[in-house]
Amino acid sequence: MPKIVDHDKQRLLVAEAAWRVIRRDGMEQASVRKIAEEAGISPGSMRHYFSTQSELLLYAMTLVSERVHERIKRLDLNGPPLENAKRLLLEVLPTTEENMAEMEVWYAFTAKSKTDPALKSLADQVYGELRYTASSVIQYLIKLGLAKPDMQEQLETERLYALIDGLAVHAILNPEQMEPKLLEDIVELHLSSLCGKP
Amino acid sequence: MPKIVDHDKQRLLVAEAAWRVIRRDGMEQASVRKIAEEAGISPGSMRHYFSTQSELLLYAMTLVSERVHERIKRLDLNGPPLENAKRLLLEVLPTTEENMAEMEVWYAFTAKSKTDPALKSLADQVYGELRYTASSVIQYLIKLGLAKPDMQEQLETERLYALIDGLAVHAILNPEQMEPKLLEDIVELHLSSLCGKP
Repeated sequence: MPKIVDHDKQRLLVAEAAWRVIRRDGMEQASVRKIAEEAGISPGSMRHYFSTQSELLLYAMTLVSERVHERIKRLDLNGPPLENAKRLLLEVLPTTEENMAEMEVWYAFTAKSKTDPALKSLADQVYGELRYTASSVIQYLIKLGLAKPDMQEQLETERLYALIDGLAVHAILNPEQMEPKLLEDIVELHLSSLCGKP
Repeated sequence: MPKIVDHDKQRLLVAEAAWRVIRRDGMEQASVRKIAEEAGISPGSMRHYFSTQSELLLYAMTLVSERVHERIKRLDLNGPPLENAKRLLLEVLPTTEENMAEMEVWYAFTAKSKTDPALKSLADQVYGELRYTASSVIQYLIKLGLAKPDMQEQLETERLYALIDGLAVHAILNPEQMEPKLLEDIVELHLSSLCGKP
């Protein structure tokens, strides 16, 4: 009787192994061979799941994206509006061990997408999704009448999106200083300033 | 008579070749061999200048840093204060072809510094220098009495620094959309908002 392998489960195991290797050793070290070793399967079996490093990275990044979506869907957004907006933005910032791993994959992935055409399309999609998060927050503040009356929607969307990604990069590069509390305080300050609060 | 080689000039040529390779093919492709080929020298001669890829990247990043310093030193900052602050910040954003090349080296360098200990110390130094640029602008606004009276200096420094780096990353990832004019408008909006202008 042939051995029955649950391929979906195995792909998840392989993707998780990929994350561990990327976080520990960096994107350049995330070879198919090394990830097979980390996942405890033979390099030969890897071809059932991923045949190139690009495919593997695509899959790992897709998983990151799904996990973030899942968490955002589960968010309880019944608090005061500025608290809701803050909680949404903090989901795409490295404020926990789990988020930090995701953001490190994202950072390495986007840097690599600059020169790997196979990654470009997903990188563009992720860029669009994160921009949409910023855009939703700005629209939410406008809709509730909290935003300053003269708000320039497009400029504020780009400013908020750049701030969020800059904070993410700084937390990845300098985690000792860019602690979760500091990230939260800066997001709070920015949201207040959008509403014309002192 | 032995051939006389101007090593400083040669190092510069090699570093510039390294930039071209990094921009065109990405950091992972910036091997000592490939850069020798780009610079038109033999891989053997490369050891006079750099013996590992890390050394070479260190040198290229050091040059980027020096070029930015030089430009900032030459800036004519005798205009209106907010104009001066904006011009200073725009020097560390990819608003010209030249700056774009520098920022792409910086982005690839910082991403790689996460996992290459040889790059960590320069990465920390560059992080500190860019943070200092943000901090100088905030202090300048406070000193001239332009900043809002309740300004939280440390938070505003981190917010401005994250915004600048986020804008740089977005301009690198998405240059068609994040044009120089848009970067400038966002920096201007942010500076105005720090001064309590509408």
